[in-house]
Amino acid sequence: MVSRRVVIVGGVAGGASCAARLRRLDENAEIFVFERGGFVSFANCGLPYYIGGVIAPRERLIVASPERFRDYFNIEIRVHHEVTKIDRENRIVHVRNCQTGTSFTRPYDNLVLSPGARPIVPNVPGVDLPGVFTLRLLEDAERIYRWLEDRQVTRAVVVGAGYIGLEMVENLVHRNIAVTLVEAANQILPGFDGEMVVPFYDKLAAHEVEILLGSPLCAIEPHNSQLAVVAGGKRIPCGAVILCVGVRPEVTLAENAGLEIGELGGIRVDEQMRTTDPSIFAVGDAVEVKDLVTGKWTWVPLAGVASRQARVAADAICGRLSQFRGALGTAIVTAFGVTIAKTGLTEKAAQRDGVRYQKSYSHSPHHATYYPGAKSIAIKLLFDPQDGRILGAQAVGETGVDKRIDIIAMAIQKGGTIFDLEEAELCYAPQFGSARDPINIAGFVAGNVCRGDADLAYWEDLDHKPQADAPLVVDVRTPGEHAAGAPPRAINIPLGELRSRLHELPTDRELWVHCGIGQRAYYAARILKQKGFRVKNLSGGYVTYRMYRRSKPAD
Amino acid sequence: MVSRRVVIVGGVAGGASCAARLRRLDENAEIFVFERGGFVSFANCGLPYYIGGVIAPRERLIVASPERFRDYFNIEIRVHHEVTKIDRENRIVHVRNCQTGTSFTRPYDNLVLSPGARPIVPNVPGVDLPGVFTLRLLEDAERIYRWLEDRQVTRAVVVGAGYIGLEMVENLVHRNIAVTLVEAANQILPGFDGEMVVPFYDKLAAHEVEILLGSPLCAIEPHNSQLAVVAGGKRIPCGAVILCVGVRPEVTLAENAGLEIGELGGIRVDEQMRTTDPSIFAVGDAVEVKDLVTGKWTWVPLAGVASRQARVAADAICGRLSQFRGALGTAIVTAFGVTIAKTGLTEKAAQRDGVRYQKSYSHSPHHATYYPGAKSIAIKLLFDPQDGRILGAQAVGETGVDKRIDIIAMAIQKGGTIFDLEEAELCYAPQFGSARDPINIAGFVAGNVCRGDADLAYWEDLDHKPQADAPLVVDVRTPGEHAAGAPPRAINIPLGELRSRLHELPTDRELWVHCGIGQRAYYAARILKQKGFRVKNLSGGYVTYRMYRRSKPAD
Repeated sequence: MVSRRVVIVGGVAGGASCAARLRRLDENAEIFVFERGGFVSFANCGLPYYIGGVIAPRERLIVASPERFRDYFNIEIRVHHEVTKIDRENRIVHVRNCQTGTSFTRPYDNLVLSPGARPIVPNVPGVDLPGVFTLRLLEDAERIYRWLEDRQVTRAVVVGAGYIGLEMVENLVHRNIAVTLVEAANQILPGFDGEMVVPFYDKLAAHEVEILLGSPLCAIEPHNSQLAVVAGGKRIPCGAVILCVGVRPEVTLAENAGLEIGELGGIRVDEQMRTTDPSIFAVGDAVEVKDLVTGKWTWVPLAGVASRQARVAADAICGRLSQFRGALGTAIVTAFGVTIAKTGLTEKAAQRDGVRYQKSYSHSPHHATYYPGAKSIAIKLLFDPQDGRILGAQAVGETGVDKRIDIIAMAIQKGGTIFDLEEAELCYAPQFGSARDPINIAGFVAGNVCRGDADLAYWEDLDHKPQADAPLVVDVRTPGEHAAGAPPRAINIPLGELRSRLHELPTDRELWVHCGIGQRAYYAARILKQKGFRVKNLSGGYVTYRMYRRSKPAD
Repeated sequence: MVSRRVVIVGGVAGGASCAARLRRLDENAEIFVFERGGFVSFANCGLPYYIGGVIAPRERLIVASPERFRDYFNIEIRVHHEVTKIDRENRIVHVRNCQTGTSFTRPYDNLVLSPGARPIVPNVPGVDLPGVFTLRLLEDAERIYRWLEDRQVTRAVVVGAGYIGLEMVENLVHRNIAVTLVEAANQILPGFDGEMVVPFYDKLAAHEVEILLGSPLCAIEPHNSQLAVVAGGKRIPCGAVILCVGVRPEVTLAENAGLEIGELGGIRVDEQMRTTDPSIFAVGDAVEVKDLVTGKWTWVPLAGVASRQARVAADAICGRLSQFRGALGTAIVTAFGVTIAKTGLTEKAAQRDGVRYQKSYSHSPHHATYYPGAKSIAIKLLFDPQDGRILGAQAVGETGVDKRIDIIAMAIQKGGTIFDLEEAELCYAPQFGSARDPINIAGFVAGNVCRGDADLAYWEDLDHKPQADAPLVVDVRTPGEHAAGAPPRAINIPLGELRSRLHELPTDRELWVHCGIGQRAYYAARILKQKGFRVKNLSGGYVTYRMYRRSKPAD
């Protein structure tokens, strides 16, 4: 009566989803899930907030219990059970009960690997000292929580300024713990472009977070019954160290079984999530997938992606033709009231992958400015300069950031162009948007480039221009704005006076115009271009200038 | 030196945008804008909030002044100037200065009509009494504001429960004015499907707003030096009446000039916004456009659409090939903490236009439930039952509604299907979404239907089923949930007990299963279907049941 025997390794995001989907498709399958940890289907992304006391009690983090899986899905889940070996020839897994130490075997017709990822621990002295933690499992969060409580920790060091690192900083601050953030790269959130993360620096400073960039962790040492972190030429005493330097696909089991591992270190799967053994599937943080934009292999350890992969694997096991089309890497993080999100390629990624791109910046209020509370969103678009296809977007601001990136994610998913952003017909009431939403504005700015109506220049180009060929920077803001802060060597001709002051401008030199955010400069550039000047618009204006300058470590 | 002479009639949304775009494209055009009212480019959508005191001072509503247009764009704007006649043969407009009474003519090479819409005034006695207002112009808002202030109005009647009507109610309540809302239709927000607007009823009641549905305005009468509104068999004394019964395209000028007017009463234009006179263009609330979903003529008086049309018209005048691809009718309104939005077709519109559709309901938290503050969003999807193409969506909830509708708007714009919603890769951090966003969930529910994994039934079908063929309604929630409220004649078998109680269910009768929101019922339906039962899932579960029941006037 059993149609197929399925064994699933790992019961958190992908494994649990796959098991439930399998049952919905096949009431007669025998489904066993072995989870090494003590919990299935827990909210990994909530762990920093549990430590910070934002999420309480701990039970809130448990999405579903083994009992729920039994009652609803007739699925057997064994926690504290580790699959130690795959015998592919006999289609058997070896399982160890981590609590009793006993071992047994279990046969399968199909095996699904969902082992997830494991935290990277830097290879430096002292990482195994008491008080040094990684954060991946619910048990890790509990250990950290208890350590902070029991020791009444007042100073902590977070190593690694990625998503989890930044969330940890916010949550430690929320607990009134003084934090030093140590990062090897010369920016926080290295998954984003450097200028886009700048709005976080002020917020971190306002919360008295010390940031050490370009500072690889050198060592952790005992220090007066506490700890001291050595990094960036400093020695930082603290009561706890949280290592958030990233994760790595957990592929030991797959590797030992001889399944193919990709160049990025993840299990290689086809579009149906099948490994190189056709009876074994793999999903979640342990696998490599295709990048939807570039078509290249990538590694996207995110819960939403794992969930989709789990469905595909279950479908494939049941003979359905579902395919995983690829990942965009849509991601978001928020801390101290600033939110940054991305979808598709960053500029760094485009450069790394050799993708031809043009970029544009725009800054728009998240809703109509006549309604109280409008906050600016900075959007950076990457697009194909030939056909306008959107390659990626990043946005940062205080509110409304998630919406804009999600809209662009859908556009990219559908092969959309910057012209589609121009035409997007989005919700407009004064609380939510504008007649011209930030999405439309971002499209207009990029569209003007693609149509040849505006040529963009970039602030970094100004740094690299040889003096002989230096363009004249023209600030078309008001004298008041100019006086309050302007880039070096910029001359000031307000937009309203431009038509009557054209004679002041050289015709033998390229003019690079800028304003606050790029709008008036675009108007000015249109005038100048039509009057025969060689003109470019410094993309994103003075706001982008400030982001760019502050992203340079030298400043 | 003048390249072309362009006259624009109306300087608010479309007219102002068109003028500015024209200048950016052609520095040598002569551009005149005549605006009948006293302001150009003011924030129409902010007027209710100005009356409510949320937006202050009045100057915030003025997006750009005539001076700004002169300084930035070299555009001449004449306010208080009405174009009274178009002489198409001689390409001349007759203009009247409304302040001096003098008239003059102005020649054009191209004319752009952007006259907007005018408020409908019901043809009943008393609409011209002092204290009875419509709301369209900034001057209207000022008159209402002053009336409410000067008379210290404590009771008001709003006639018409559309977008503006509902916003007016909220803003009057915000001013501590007791409000009666009078609506001819048997629901508020008639542009939405009846069950979707239900969440507003409790909120309106909580703010002591009296609602009279199915109550056309009969008369307005003087009453003790104040007013009384006669509607719904009642006579409601009040200090002010705001008529918000809708708007109608302002086409007098176009009509008198012999330009084609469509069946919906708007000016007919081609995809370049050209009227039947090739030198005359029209944009904004006065024109009919094509519905992007059905391809039929529609009328969408919304600011974002006007803005896009204005660009297209300017492009066309300057010889560019831009096209207006059509409108989705994306719209949103919020009041008393509830937000509803839509894009594409409602069920009403699909029925009216004879569009083949299937619908599905889903209810999902706007972000992860393990993070504090998650609020449920109800989504109603309409899709093509054959290929899954999305036809329309409505969403209602307390937060995150705009985002979901905007994502779907982009999907529809790109010809997307419900399967695209399943695969959408959206921002997930616990503050913003879930590993399975409401968009994904909505896609799954609809996708299950399209793939034949689940057959949906609807609560209204239950009302219409003949007794002989009545399905058995099976509530798979817990006994506690069932006891707290369930549809009539439903039997209760909790999901967790279903597999062991199959023998209690009849095999000769269709089973219609439901739970709270549809998830457990889907699990149950999968079990039952695989076990050979004829089963349907009551879409949206008990939550949709309650919305449906409360949308029926009889209740």
